[in-house]
Amino acid sequence: MFETAELGQKIDPKDYKNQLPDLRAELLQAQFALSKTNTPVIIIISGIDAAGRGDTVNALNAWLDTRGLQTIALDSLTDEERERPYYWRFWRQLPAAGRIGIFFGGWYVDPILQSAYKKMETAQVHEALTHIRRFETMLVQDGALILKFWLHLSKHEQHKRLKKLEQNENTKRSVSKQDWKKAKLYNEFVKAAEQAIRYTDSGDAPWILVEATDWRYRNLTVARTLLETLRKYLDAPPTAENHPPIVTPALNSTSILDTVDLTQSLTKKSYHEKLETYQGKLHRLAWEAYQKQCSTIIVFEGWDAAGKGGAIRRMTQAMDARLYRVNSIAAPTDEERAHHYLWRFWRQISRAGRVTIYDRSWYGRVLVERVEHFATEKEWQRAYLEINDFEEQLVQHGSIVIKFWVHISKDEQLRRFKEREKIPYKQHKITEEDWRNREKWNDYTIAVNEMVTRTSTNFAPWTLVAGEDKHFARVQVLKTVCERLEAGLNNIGKKL
Amino acid sequence: MFETAELGQKIDPKDYKNQLPDLRAELLQAQFALSKTNTPVIIIISGIDAAGRGDTVNALNAWLDTRGLQTIALDSLTDEERERPYYWRFWRQLPAAGRIGIFFGGWYVDPILQSAYKKMETAQVHEALTHIRRFETMLVQDGALILKFWLHLSKHEQHKRLKKLEQNENTKRSVSKQDWKKAKLYNEFVKAAEQAIRYTDSGDAPWILVEATDWRYRNLTVARTLLETLRKYLDAPPTAENHPPIVTPALNSTSILDTVDLTQSLTKKSYHEKLETYQGKLHRLAWEAYQKQCSTIIVFEGWDAAGKGGAIRRMTQAMDARLYRVNSIAAPTDEERAHHYLWRFWRQISRAGRVTIYDRSWYGRVLVERVEHFATEKEWQRAYLEINDFEEQLVQHGSIVIKFWVHISKDEQLRRFKEREKIPYKQHKITEEDWRNREKWNDYTIAVNEMVTRTSTNFAPWTLVAGEDKHFARVQVLKTVCERLEAGLNNIGKKL
Repeated sequence: MFETAELGQKIDPKDYKNQLPDLRAELLQAQFALSKTNTPVIIIISGIDAAGRGDTVNALNAWLDTRGLQTIALDSLTDEERERPYYWRFWRQLPAAGRIGIFFGGWYVDPILQSAYKKMETAQVHEALTHIRRFETMLVQDGALILKFWLHLSKHEQHKRLKKLEQNENTKRSVSKQDWKKAKLYNEFVKAAEQAIRYTDSGDAPWILVEATDWRYRNLTVARTLLETLRKYLDAPPTAENHPPIVTPALNSTSILDTVDLTQSLTKKSYHEKLETYQGKLHRLAWEAYQKQCSTIIVFEGWDAAGKGGAIRRMTQAMDARLYRVNSIAAPTDEERAHHYLWRFWRQISRAGRVTIYDRSWYGRVLVERVEHFATEKEWQRAYLEINDFEEQLVQHGSIVIKFWVHISKDEQLRRFKEREKIPYKQHKITEEDWRNREKWNDYTIAVNEMVTRTSTNFAPWTLVAGEDKHFARVQVLKTVCERLEAGLNNIGKKL
Repeated sequence: MFETAELGQKIDPKDYKNQLPDLRAELLQAQFALSKTNTPVIIIISGIDAAGRGDTVNALNAWLDTRGLQTIALDSLTDEERERPYYWRFWRQLPAAGRIGIFFGGWYVDPILQSAYKKMETAQVHEALTHIRRFETMLVQDGALILKFWLHLSKHEQHKRLKKLEQNENTKRSVSKQDWKKAKLYNEFVKAAEQAIRYTDSGDAPWILVEATDWRYRNLTVARTLLETLRKYLDAPPTAENHPPIVTPALNSTSILDTVDLTQSLTKKSYHEKLETYQGKLHRLAWEAYQKQCSTIIVFEGWDAAGKGGAIRRMTQAMDARLYRVNSIAAPTDEERAHHYLWRFWRQISRAGRVTIYDRSWYGRVLVERVEHFATEKEWQRAYLEINDFEEQLVQHGSIVIKFWVHISKDEQLRRFKEREKIPYKQHKITEEDWRNREKWNDYTIAVNEMVTRTSTNFAPWTLVAGEDKHFARVQVLKTVCERLEAGLNNIGKKL
């Protein structure tokens, strides 16, 4: 989930300076317009320690009119609060209509920390998160606008930053032993945060992940997202009969796909050696999985002509035909169309111990259906949560879920398209539609980036495959599948 | 919650016979119109054992066109099902667009039974119910119509019916030892069912409680509700941008208010004796509650001139003024209007150990705001769930929540209105509005009945007060408060 917030996003200082005056004027305008409406705005600023939550809140306070703004930083429970139900502390701080309330962490602080520190049991964490969803839904249904920002730093970056704060005379007192102790639990903290975000990332009250390494990028992204959302809201205010409008995060300039090193390749010799090794391994692992009744679900998504089919064939060659099934997902049948879009995938779930490979999958909902407007914005927005739910049920039942996005450059795709047109037995693989899709490369890039952000979970992460060299890609796929299977089979006892 | 399903509702056999032909024709018509739409209909038939779930399903099968209908009775997990995630068994049975699927219990069977048999921990039950809500929401957002019926029998009635089945040669084999064992757990079962219904009774996929003592009434109510809902749905089909339309249960002919015995009264002597007894008791209990830091919240709702004020005064006379506060709820202030309607009540929550009395309350949302159309149907429909959530938080925090509806007859109200107009110092208590409200007596009766159905929970039950004789009413209130306080104070250890 946080992969897309570790891309090294930056804004040039000059650029920042140039953008600021207009942005500030526009923010004030939007805030003024908001103050005439019935909409209270709730902003939650959460994130990794040292990611600059305080600085971000300061920036918003500087840029907005503070008369319509309140900042709420809650410490440990006061006596007054302890004597009332837990949510009293939040209710009393809710902004009135037309006003903005900025919460430091808000109602997320406790569930995330307590889950990271293992002070809450899983079921309790779920309950707390469910409570949050009901609370937020209630407010949104009543007309509130809720925006939740997660300011992210990589583990390495957090460490660097704490060190730097410590070395500076002026700031060293802000870093305590406690902070270092917390930083050591980075992985646990991020895992707990991911769960909290996943459970509460509804279309109604969305999370926006913001890379916080560069403070200019961080501040601008938060402010721009706020501005765009306010405008969208002011343009089409919700009515009692109408769902709240959808919040779309301001787009990152860099996409997760840019991080894939497409220069990676294998020599023919090395390819054949590795192919043999991993195919042999996969053969054994597939049988072991069958004996242990552990199911595997492998999802392939990627650009047209990225080489999904070839990678799939290298896998199926290695396995006993009784153990796997390949589902190629084309347009739904009439019967499938008469059901929820996930229905066709539920009915395809194999019996225990099998490997099911999807050549395209349920992710069509947030890729082609989004880009081609087959699904409404609301439909694909809520699909992230539905898909995460679906995959979580698979994993909870003991399945291993492996997801690949096979990536190639736009130039390489062109080369392959042209090649296909020349080779008679490949001509059927290239259609008008492929050329049309190609024109929407940028739309797809945005959709893929958001898909990875919202559905790469610790229980079912995405693997981005460097597809420019087909040999490299096939080995990367085989190797990943073997590793995930091995890890999964070793964990069987622990899961149950 | 089930009080309104134990009223002795009946339909005369002749009446039943007369209504049937038209009803059946209309049902078939509606079903035919439905088959042309994109709406799958999911009907869940749940309820108490021996309430006639099977008979009801048979009736629907007889009255509807079975070509567009499927009935799904799931037994224990099959091998096939065990090898897949739990919800697979439901997904594969979901009806397609335009069709009706009738589920025996559906996804509610396990959570309710396992919770009643204490085979699931509280947090797990919550998780299972949360899962249901997400599942149903997903289907409804996709265009499905979900109707859930709970066929209710009182404990006594269930026992009677099982006995009768056993005595009949033809049916005795349908009553097993298991059934009698389950019947012994009636109270646990009903408590578990109440929780399941409360957590999943959303405006999107509502529950309809049906009294099942009289089979004619049961069948007609189910069929009429289905018909009315289908019609409503066909008249205003939902769009992607639109919430699903709201389902309103077909109205009972008898209201819960009819069960209040208004002839109850006290002699003056007896009144003064009891008043003294309970006031003394209340005085001691209020101090004890303060010492134990246990808060009490007492809600008064009732007809105009029903005597709420008098009953409240008899309580406050008895308590130390430092221990209680009376909140009279009138129209909200500007500031309150700028927040969620529950905000004003959250801010009024007293510190621990105090008694807070509400002369009218948050129930205004589902009473006056409903009847006067100050709130939209969607707003007051979702308020039941919000209010239950709110009260649950109060109780979970250790508060005792006591709720009174003070009932009088329409004639008695008229007498008191006229009396008020005659007595100078009471004239201010009677306004034009009171006369207007009186005209809406029937609307209020419906609203009160639904309010009690949906918000009388085991942790915060409603008490209906027989208000025709003021003396009787005051003593009933004092006595109830003392009993609830005593029980609550004894349970303090158990709650934590």
